[in-house]
Amino acid sequence: MKPSIATEGEFKGWEYWPEEAFESRAGPFYRMIDEEGVIGAFRAETRHMNAGGSVHGGCLMTFADFMLFSIALDYFRNGEMGVTLTCNNEFVDAARLGEKLTSRGEVVRAGKSIIFVRGTIYAEDRPCLSFSGSIKRFLAR
Amino acid sequence: MKPSIATEGEFKGWEYWPEEAFESRAGPFYRMIDEEGVIGAFRAETRHMNAGGSVHGGCLMTFADFMLFSIALDYFRNGEMGVTLTCNNEFVDAARLGEKLTSRGEVVRAGKSIIFVRGTIYAEDRPCLSFSGSIKRFLAR
Amino acid sequence: MKPSIATEGEFKGWEYWPEEAFESRAGPFYRMIDEEGVIGAFRAETRHMNAGGSVHGGCLMTFADFMLFSIALDYFRNGEMGVTLTCNNEFVDAARLGEKLTSRGEVVRAGKSIIFVRGTIYAEDRPCLSFSGSIKRFLAR
Amino acid sequence: MKPSIATEGEFKGWEYWPEEAFESRAGPFYRMIDEEGVIGAFRAETRHMNAGGSVHGGCLMTFADFMLFSIALDYFRNGEMGVTLTCNNEFVDAARLGEKLTSRGEVVRAGKSIIFVRGTIYAEDRPCLSFSGSIKRFLAR
Repeated sequence: MKPSIATEGEFKGWEYWPEEAFESRAGPFYRMIDEEGVIGAFRAETRHMNAGGSVHGGCLMTFADFMLFSIALDYFRNGEMGVTLTCNNEFVDAARLGEKLTSRGEVVRAGKSIIFVRGTIYAEDRPCLSFSGSIKRFLAR
Repeated sequence: MKPSIATEGEFKGWEYWPEEAFESRAGPFYRMIDEEGVIGAFRAETRHMNAGGSVHGGCLMTFADFMLFSIALDYFRNGEMGVTLTCNNEFVDAARLGEKLTSRGEVVRAGKSIIFVRGTIYAEDRPCLSFSGSIKRFLAR
Repeated sequence: MKPSIATEGEFKGWEYWPEEAFESRAGPFYRMIDEEGVIGAFRAETRHMNAGGSVHGGCLMTFADFMLFSIALDYFRNGEMGVTLTCNNEFVDAARLGEKLTSRGEVVRAGKSIIFVRGTIYAEDRPCLSFSGSIKRFLAR
Repeated sequence: MKPSIATEGEFKGWEYWPEEAFESRAGPFYRMIDEEGVIGAFRAETRHMNAGGSVHGGCLMTFADFMLFSIALDYFRNGEMGVTLTCNNEFVDAARLGEKLTSRGEVVRAGKSIIFVRGTIYAEDRPCLSFSGSIKRFLAR
C-alpha cells in the first residue's frame, strides 16, 4: 500500500497511511528515512493520554505495531504483504503530554516466511518502550 | 478511578472509563462481571480496522492492555494504582468487521509489587489474541 | 520422535526423550496424559538450582520449551515436526530445592503453519512460570 | 557473587560462575569485557543439542538468561542482587554443532526497581536468538 505524504504540520514531508482507519485515529503516525535509516514519529497530544496523564500503553503499542511494518517495509518482496504474528512490549518509562515520540529499530532477520523486528520508542531522548515482534509474509491476492 | 455505566447501546449496563482519552477513542471498551468472572467486550466497527480489512493489531493490543487492568482490578489495595510493565501479544487469528470481540483472563499471581495477568481475546467464538502482562503496583499520591 | 517410558523412579511409566541431549541433561523432564490432559513434571534437584538457591530460570524455560511441544504433540500431522519460533516467560514465583515441578497448558490455536501454545509451571501448587510460545510446523525430510 | 576466571581452554581468561549449578551444567557460559562492551560466549557441543541436530532452545534461553545478568551486572548497586521477572525469546535461526555462540546486548533502562535489558545471540556471525527481559533488583540479606 502506497503511503501519502503529509503536506502540512510538524511532520510535513513524512509518509503516512490515511487508509489505515485505526492507525490514523490512534496516531496518526509518520515515517521517514534519514541518514540513520527508518524513523517513525508523532507528537503526544491530549487524545493519546491515559487517565494518569501519560501516553496510553495501547497508543505506544499501536505505534510499535506501525514501526514493525515501517522498519520491515523494504524487506517485503513484490506483491507480498504481512501480518503481525507476535508483538512483545516492555514499558520502560512514561511518555508525557507534548513530548515528541520517535522510534527506530532493526530487522533482526528476514526469513523466507517470517521477518523478525525489534526497536525502541523514545519520548524526546528517553527510551519509553522496547518492542520486538514477528511478521508473517504472505502473497496479496 | 470509578467507572461510568453505559446507559444505551449494545453494552448498556457495562462499565467503561470515559476519562481514559486514548482508550475511549480506540474503543471504547466495556467491562462486566458475570457468573464466570470478568468479561470485556466491544463491537468491531469500521474505525477499528486496518487497511487489510481486519481489526488493527494496535486496537487488539489496546483492548489487551484494558483487559490487564480489568482482570486485575479487584487485586489492587486501597489507594493503589498500576502501570503496565510488560505486555506480550500473540495474534492467533484475524478479527473481522462487525464481529463481537470479548475477552477473559486470569491473575496468574498477585505479588507484593507486581501482578501477573494473562488472557485471550475472542472474535465471536474464535481466539484471536493471546496476551500476558505484568502490572507494577504503586501508591497513588 | 518416539518417547521412551521411564521404568523406575518417581516418574515410572511417564514418557521422556533420552535422545534429546540437552533436555535430558537439563531435566530430564517427563510427560503423561491423565484425565485432565497433558501434564509434564520433574523433581527440583541440586543440579537444577541457581546460586541463590532457587531453580534456575534457564531450567524453567527449558521445561517450558519441552512443554510447548508436549502440549502441541497431538496437533502435529503425519511426518510433521516443529521448531520453536517464540517463547515468552514470566517468572511469577521462585521454585525451591526438592519441590515437584509440574506443568499444564493448552493449544490456543493450531493454524496451518503455526501452533500457538501457552501454559503454567507449578512448584508444588504455586504458579512459578507463565509461558506462551509459537511453534512453526514443517515436514521432516 | 564473584566470578571465577577460566584458566584453560578456548575461553581462558574469561569470567564464569562455577557455583551456578544449572548454568554450569547447561553451559558453562563465559563473559568478558572487550572494547565494544560485554560479550558472552560458549562453543556448541554435543551436550547442547536437541534431537534435530540444532542447539536446544532451552540452552539458548539459558544463555539469554545468563546474558541478562551479564549485561546488567555493572548496573547493580552495592549489596544488590536481581531476579529475572520476564524473558522473551525469538528464535530467528538455528545454531549448529561446533559453532561459536556469542552474545551482546544493552541495558535499555536501569530503573529504580527494575532493569530492562535486551540482546542477541549469534551463531558465528548469524543472529539466532533475539531476547529481551526485565530484572527486579532487591537487597541481598
